[in-house]
Amino acid sequence: MDSDYGVPRELSEVQKKRALYQPEVPPCLQGTTVRVEYGDAAIAADPAGAHVISQAFPHTYGQPLAHFLRKTAVVPDAKVISEHPAVRVGIVFCGRQSPGGHNVVWGLYEAIKAHNQSSKLIGFLGGSDGLLAQKTLEITDDVLSSYKNQGGYDMLGRTKDQIRTKEQVNGAMASCQALKLDALVIIGGVTSNTDAAQLAETFAKAKCATKVVGVPVTLNGDLKNQFVETTVGFDTICKVNSQLISNVCTDALSAEKYYYFIRLMGRKASHVALECTLQSHPNMVILGEEVAASKLTIFDITKQICDAVQARADKDKNHGVILIPEGLVESIPELYALLQEIHGLHGRGVSAENISSQLSPWASALFEFLPPFIRKQLLLHPESDDSAQLSQIETEKLLAQLVETEMNRRLKEGTYKGKKFNAICHFFGYQARGALPSKFDCDYAYASSCSFFFSYKANCLWVINHVGCWFQVLGHVCYHIIAAGLNGYMATVTNLKSPVNKWRCGAAPISSMMTVKRWSRGPSATQIGKPAVHMASVDLKGKAYELLRQSSSSFLLEDIYRNPGPLQFEGPGADSKPISLCVEDQDYMGRIKKLQEYLEKVKSIVKPGCSQDVLKAALSAMASVTETLNIMTSSSPGQTQLS
Amino acid sequence: MDSDYGVPRELSEVQKKRALYQPEVPPCLQGTTVRVEYGDAAIAADPAGAHVISQAFPHTYGQPLAHFLRKTAVVPDAKVISEHPAVRVGIVFCGRQSPGGHNVVWGLYEAIKAHNQSSKLIGFLGGSDGLLAQKTLEITDDVLSSYKNQGGYDMLGRTKDQIRTKEQVNGAMASCQALKLDALVIIGGVTSNTDAAQLAETFAKAKCATKVVGVPVTLNGDLKNQFVETTVGFDTICKVNSQLISNVCTDALSAEKYYYFIRLMGRKASHVALECTLQSHPNMVILGEEVAASKLTIFDITKQICDAVQARADKDKNHGVILIPEGLVESIPELYALLQEIHGLHGRGVSAENISSQLSPWASALFEFLPPFIRKQLLLHPESDDSAQLSQIETEKLLAQLVETEMNRRLKEGTYKGKKFNAICHFFGYQARGALPSKFDCDYAYASSCSFFFSYKANCLWVINHVGCWFQVLGHVCYHIIAAGLNGYMATVTNLKSPVNKWRCGAAPISSMMTVKRWSRGPSATQIGKPAVHMASVDLKGKAYELLRQSSSSFLLEDIYRNPGPLQFEGPGADSKPISLCVEDQDYMGRIKKLQEYLEKVKSIVKPGCSQDVLKAALSAMASVTETLNIMTSSSPGQTQLS
Repeated sequence: MDSDYGVPRELSEVQKKRALYQPEVPPCLQGTTVRVEYGDAAIAADPAGAHVISQAFPHTYGQPLAHFLRKTAVVPDAKVISEHPAVRVGIVFCGRQSPGGHNVVWGLYEAIKAHNQSSKLIGFLGGSDGLLAQKTLEITDDVLSSYKNQGGYDMLGRTKDQIRTKEQVNGAMASCQALKLDALVIIGGVTSNTDAAQLAETFAKAKCATKVVGVPVTLNGDLKNQFVETTVGFDTICKVNSQLISNVCTDALSAEKYYYFIRLMGRKASHVALECTLQSHPNMVILGEEVAASKLTIFDITKQICDAVQARADKDKNHGVILIPEGLVESIPELYALLQEIHGLHGRGVSAENISSQLSPWASALFEFLPPFIRKQLLLHPESDDSAQLSQIETEKLLAQLVETEMNRRLKEGTYKGKKFNAICHFFGYQARGALPSKFDCDYAYASSCSFFFSYKANCLWVINHVGCWFQVLGHVCYHIIAAGLNGYMATVTNLKSPVNKWRCGAAPISSMMTVKRWSRGPSATQIGKPAVHMASVDLKGKAYELLRQSSSSFLLEDIYRNPGPLQFEGPGADSKPISLCVEDQDYMGRIKKLQEYLEKVKSIVKPGCSQDVLKAALSAMASVTETLNIMTSSSPGQTQLS
Repeated sequence: MDSDYGVPRELSEVQKKRALYQPEVPPCLQGTTVRVEYGDAAIAADPAGAHVISQAFPHTYGQPLAHFLRKTAVVPDAKVISEHPAVRVGIVFCGRQSPGGHNVVWGLYEAIKAHNQSSKLIGFLGGSDGLLAQKTLEITDDVLSSYKNQGGYDMLGRTKDQIRTKEQVNGAMASCQALKLDALVIIGGVTSNTDAAQLAETFAKAKCATKVVGVPVTLNGDLKNQFVETTVGFDTICKVNSQLISNVCTDALSAEKYYYFIRLMGRKASHVALECTLQSHPNMVILGEEVAASKLTIFDITKQICDAVQARADKDKNHGVILIPEGLVESIPELYALLQEIHGLHGRGVSAENISSQLSPWASALFEFLPPFIRKQLLLHPESDDSAQLSQIETEKLLAQLVETEMNRRLKEGTYKGKKFNAICHFFGYQARGALPSKFDCDYAYASSCSFFFSYKANCLWVINHVGCWFQVLGHVCYHIIAAGLNGYMATVTNLKSPVNKWRCGAAPISSMMTVKRWSRGPSATQIGKPAVHMASVDLKGKAYELLRQSSSSFLLEDIYRNPGPLQFEGPGADSKPISLCVEDQDYMGRIKKLQEYLEKVKSIVKPGCSQDVLKAALSAMASVTETLNIMTSSSPGQTQLS
């Protein structure tokens, strides 16, 4: 027998109630008609990389942004088509499970069925493996029934492999052609969306009819850029983890004798750790981005924690809670360099047992200094994206041990007079990844996948658009634009900090989210010069980090722990959103739209025949604007992501 | 400055809503009058130990059970007293924090203030340390405001020390006298309630006026006997852990490549592991009680798990979730024996570094076989109750390693043909212990502490009763019985599986819950012959275990994982209770009451003057009942707890 994917699950009371929840949809998707407006061609934020990207993606770079709007006026040349061909759309979970993934499938299903009951949504089983092997499951009401608003990826399963080699890309194309797919929807994070863009480009070049689109789903929250405010799953993960961190804080405060070192899943960036800190107010968090920016060594970090323990002991506090992102180990310069050497040796086929003897003298010295458990973990084979197996490296234990040794030394020396230092270590990750998605993630996933669950009216025109879903659009002008085959887009829902009725739906070309790495070392040096959607680090100039910085000393010394409580689906807390999302004033898509309106307004005021004064005023003002922007954009290569 | 105990906390939205929740109280406590009925003198369930117990507790053994009932009739000699002296009651958290502890304080506070606003509830800070050092905090509305229905013990703090040595007991008595306490309420588990009984006895003997009473609060759920159905905190811990286990199950099913080994906090008995299994349906659970009963060695257990992995691989399942109670290590005969040797050496003052060289040959051989990480953990100093530091011993890692080694061997040999075995280990404990208490625990704690929150009416008689709280009782007969100073009781709320309006409130002498160990080895041999409230093991003949046994093969092979969802305070799931509590048909107190009624009925029917036939029928029937019971009770020494 094969796997258990897609079999109906027995649901608990809470799950049954959740299964009945109908996600809220933004107003632009509620009516019977949606207006699609196209903006200018989207460019990459990194001007220095734009040329490389445009060369790598000749068919899919430079496509326009799309905004989906509420129908506001009758468009004169709207054409009514009442017959719509059935379409076939494939969907695949790529990368690690993230709460809300199932709702992407559900939303998409509702949208395509609303268009034509004969349309089919085909799920690939076991992620990219299933895509290549054409292992499929047709999504039906029955299949969906026990997965609506539920966690995990067990409806379809997943692998974490990439779709990157020529063989893999061709295999994917062969599957799409064999299954006669009109569109392929890829659910995943930075790596999978890079793959989606690459597939879209390759398909376009090969004149494969399948359009490829991506949906930003990853618990790490690191797919974040001008078009994407947050990812599906991040909210749930942070809520579940914050609850547990808060419980541990309460525990620390009750027992008054332990220091808890908690490592959080979230890959290289520290978004989860930052958000959980803002939600639960632990005493300390060591963000990878801070460590990298200040080039702190493992000893600097140890000293920082020891000094904090000592400062707290002076206030008679012998307990505490310290958060550590799992990516920290790659942010500590000497450990990162050691990892790079190890991975390089792996790449050259050296077996794990023999690696330690082939390290450079300095790397070998560091390696020998580390406790045995962590040596073994550092020797693990790197992931498919060349990064270390972060979930397996117990940095929290390493730090706890180093801190303990140092505190014992200080105690002996008499420079520390508090109680004996006691540490308890935790890794919070797997226990959150399969959680029931929060309301926010349910809504966001549903709206993302098919911004588009509005009831189908047969007398309107529907076309498959670039997010792989169906939009009811007015007029065959739009029809032609869309049917022309926009491809390589990512579904975007923005202004997420506002209530659902203010959300903006749209789509942006994935290639415009790419950057080009110009430096790298170790095995990942092969990525140099290749455009990719890179993970976004925590912005140390951003508002969320600012909020942390303002409170960090009171978090450290005053124990103002905050307990958001367990994830609630009703009552207070049920509608809360990530704090970092709410303080970061994003809404890039909204502003792009607003700018367009200003430019149109200027054009409409300053028409030939307007007064000399009006024209002069416009010229003067626009000259100044243009000059300012020129200066700003010519000095921007610093924005390139170097990591 | 001193600790942060009792300072007002900033509450989150969810916490604020919880703080407003008014626990439900059973009807018997709702009226303005409560009737107290006394049953027969309570005896110990273990007849063989009864003599020893009665000798050890001459002042407090053999006291009657008390039932609190709704006022059903006007009692003719009720006397109205409108003046009540103010009382002073002390309260102390003993042992580890358990969700709901704060509600015991709140309930008690409401009860004593309802009686006389000048009465005082005095909390001891930092547990038994605070009791001995007379560090106190007077409980007020202000102090309580941010702790109602909240988790942790941070309002008062705790230690986990016992109050057992002569010095400690005398210190406690000195504090109670210095603070002029009318009653001392001890919140805790088996150990702390044993201490409470001992204090009660000592105080009585020394004619100290303070009455000592216990409240059963422990997350372990192992204070369980004919009078106590479950403990405060058990429900919350099981719900929080089951949620996490379920998330991990969903994760396993999504990724299809990991085996998760999850160790659960809960001390020596496996109640938490059993309940979590019934709630979340993982593939396997290794109950300590099963292992002890079957005398399984660590290799037997490893083989059992390996066979399960293999059976699952045959069905193409390469993932799974296995629960392990933290007490398992003490249930495995050879590991227990090793621990006993180690603790014996600790007791003789041998330092941890030197212990391994002084072990007996066989223990030494086993010790050397074990991986270094677990050796270090086994060498930790035992707890104050002589048991191993269960929370620190990573049995799950030991088992995962042994299983991995064996599966690799089988893979090489070709007897196992599944995917490479991958294990991920977790310990769930600290992250649940500080959780917001469930509705059930809020209600149970509140009702337990002061079964007695009914509005105070000045025209009724209130007396301090043996559970350290105030009851409004009818008639000065009761007044004299209670005021005579019943002491050494535990508050009991029974029939808990039914809705709150069916709960029965009462009190039972702690000494009647005691048993006497007749065998033991190692350092705990000093406990031989001393009566104590011992932890209850999972009853392998009980209904909860039966339920597990019925489902275990489908749990193992069919992945019928169940996700109860996160702890909810509203909507479905909010009112759920432990499954083991609901299937175990307890209500011992209710049956004792019912029996009394039958006996009374017989007496009232068969009065002098009744017919010869009625008398003969009664005699015949009663003779048969008496004979049956004689046979049953004379063969019961097997019930003595030996562990």
